Amino acid sequence: MSHTVEILSVGTELLLGNIANTDAQMLSQGLSALGLNVYWHTVVGDNPQRAKEAVELARKRADIIITTGGLGPTCDDLTKNVLAEAFGKKLVYDEESLERIKAYGKATGRPLTENNFQQALVPEGCTVLTNNWGSAPGCAFEADGVHVIMLPGPPSECTPMFRYRVVPYLHALSEGVIASHTLKLFGIGESAMEAQLRDQMNAMANPTLAPYAKEGECELRVTAKAPTMEEAQALLLPKVEELKQHFGALVYGVDVPSLEFVVENLLREKGLTIGTAESCTGGLMAKRLTDVSGASQVFKGGIVSYTNEVKHNVLGVPQELLDQYGAVSAPVAQAMAEGARRALGCDIALSSTGVAGPDKDDWDNEVGTMFVAIATPEGTHVRALHLGNRPVRARLRTQTAHHAFDLARRYLSGLSLED
Amino acid sequence: MSHTVEILSVGTELLLGNIANTDAQMLSQGLSALGLNVYWHTVVGDNPQRAKEAVELARKRADIIITTGGLGPTCDDLTKNVLAEAFGKKLVYDEESLERIKAYGKATGRPLTENNFQQALVPEGCTVLTNNWGSAPGCAFEADGVHVIMLPGPPSECTPMFRYRVVPYLHALSEGVIASHTLKLFGIGESAMEAQLRDQMNAMANPTLAPYAKEGECELRVTAKAPTMEEAQALLLPKVEELKQHFGALVYGVDVPSLEFVVENLLREKGLTIGTAESCTGGLMAKRLTDVSGASQVFKGGIVSYTNEVKHNVLGVPQELLDQYGAVSAPVAQAMAEGARRALGCDIALSSTGVAGPDKDDWDNEVGTMFVAIATPEGTHVRALHLGNRPVRARLRTQTAHHAFDLARRYLSGLSLED
Repeated sequence: MSHTVEILSVGTELLLGNIANTDAQMLSQGLSALGLNVYWHTVVGDNPQRAKEAVELARKRADIIITTGGLGPTCDDLTKNVLAEAFGKKLVYDEESLERIKAYGKATGRPLTENNFQQALVPEGCTVLTNNWGSAPGCAFEADGVHVIMLPGPPSECTPMFRYRVVPYLHALSEGVIASHTLKLFGIGESAMEAQLRDQMNAMANPTLAPYAKEGECELRVTAKAPTMEEAQALLLPKVEELKQHFGALVYGVDVPSLEFVVENLLREKGLTIGTAESCTGGLMAKRLTDVSGASQVFKGGIVSYTNEVKHNVLGVPQELLDQYGAVSAPVAQAMAEGARRALGCDIALSSTGVAGPDKDDWDNEVGTMFVAIATPEGTHVRALHLGNRPVRARLRTQTAHHAFDLARRYLSGLSLED
Repeated sequence: MSHTVEILSVGTELLLGNIANTDAQMLSQGLSALGLNVYWHTVVGDNPQRAKEAVELARKRADIIITTGGLGPTCDDLTKNVLAEAFGKKLVYDEESLERIKAYGKATGRPLTENNFQQALVPEGCTVLTNNWGSAPGCAFEADGVHVIMLPGPPSECTPMFRYRVVPYLHALSEGVIASHTLKLFGIGESAMEAQLRDQMNAMANPTLAPYAKEGECELRVTAKAPTMEEAQALLLPKVEELKQHFGALVYGVDVPSLEFVVENLLREKGLTIGTAESCTGGLMAKRLTDVSGASQVFKGGIVSYTNEVKHNVLGVPQELLDQYGAVSAPVAQAMAEGARRALGCDIALSSTGVAGPDKDDWDNEVGTMFVAIATPEGTHVRALHLGNRPVRARLRTQTAHHAFDLARRYLSGLSLED
């Protein structure tokens, strides 16, 4: 399929800046992965006139229109009314949706009003996209050569609705299947990665190769189209293998969400536990490890030692090291990791210490000077980082945590700890 | 001023979903605070034809067009070329920008190419918006009754450019000044807040009142327009006082970024220190406290005790309590906070323990059952929470941390600890 997509988001809260348009981002990612071209995002408020203008524009320049928001009772089902009118569709009650709305009201204990039942009105002849994650159903229809797909706005509904309702619908439109794999890399910049691949990227047609940069990490997405899933995978897998060979230890996983997810999977496989000792990252490493559900199987705990006193008293970092080298130093990073391993009783421990800014520390270390360490039964390894002095505190902390997790996944995979 | 704004974002990375359009959110917030009506957001890729179409549309339906992105060398300064052509402006070199680009290249050690110097080309007769946060300058001009403002795309440049360059430019367009204050509330839902205010909100014209919900917190923004700043403040301040009286202890601050920021300011004022003991929040409380720069003056450290072993060994929670009540219990929350106070040597300590999901714990506690505690020199107080069982791990963790910080700000402000 070679379709052109416009994402039309309806919601005054977007125009007031109360929320970012993360629905459009999620949909764009998913549609790009399917090989569809998203050419326009448009946002309008809960205003029938401007919504109508936006629909009239979109139908001229796109052949798939995906709307988000404007389906609930507070906006009088604005999106549905405007789209139905624009494409000359009558609204009719969908019995299953009516039942579902009644059941939802009962389950949440909320009294239902006439407005709620109007949510069960859908354009005649459409495909109803059942909403198991909220009350308003989505729907899809084709008219005048344009596919219209309407989704609820809350990301907790829009995301699963896209994945479980829209992706199968779009696959059914296609003559073949589109499949992709994503390699995740750490330790190489996007421009360096792109430079190595540019020639083959330009030469490739099926599969295609697309690089992305993401908060200090890189992704390489390989996408293929074929009549069947087997054929698509047959096109993809040799290319994925080739790229894994080419980038070697820089690839930390394929189709995985994050470094910490990979680390926790490796720990689970090996029956090992982890703990953290954090200074500059201030709890971010522990927070990221516990973002993953099921973390309690492998994560024992962490110590955030923001003062020398806590480094000494809780982690047992010798006072001499703190006095001689300062808190931001390789010996202190090492002693922190070893102290965490002891105090928390974990198999491996990660530590961080550094200057996240905005100012230099008392020892005149520049902002961006960081040390991360891993303590293991076989010994401790320290990595020194110079992350540049642009004073972006959040970015420096994120990068530092990435590096600590990279040490863990290299250790657990039997790779060299040098990057 | 009663202007209509369109935000036009240029960038293929937005259409691929690599990033969310946070620039549009930030601009929308700032423009709404100025009393300007944002009616459209549009996103196009790095494609001259579609960018041109978007500009032709925008100039018909808005009288202020703010663009983000498409200014750098990698996209051939697409936005600037398209806008200059659309409004019939020649591009000329801006001497100061040329010097600045040379200096920037020198400071960052990057070699400069012809492309870099093209960034110093600006539409003839425009106001150059100096970029102190990156290399590409912004610019603003007025033509055919439309104000065009171009900003760089990276949020680390776009945000300060808006605040320090665009806001003053827009103020100069206005005949009066617009000023606003934002009350931050915790412990009340948006709908309950709105219900109490609906009648006066509808009756108010100047100042106006707008409620917002934000991740379990609420905001009330009061905005006034007047010929001078003094007159605007004279309209605002009595209303702000009245709302503070009305909502009492639920208001945690005016014009402040977050609960943790307020807590750290109160600690600094009183010369006290804080520490954390976290189970279900897994480091989030420490991470949020250390997101604020200058945290090291008041934050000593934290212990993430994800296992009973760490609760007992590091925090000194008595084994009998863990055996008798389970880890998710008021007595354990209390012992964790008191243990953190002891171990970290801080004046006050916050703790959290609960079930963040996705599943019930071994003691059959429902997801969303949480306890937070504060240990102080005068004793310890525990707050039990039942945050509902919709399995949204991140939301439950955020809310739990809010409640712990709320205990701290109430204690430090001499308010009742009951919510």
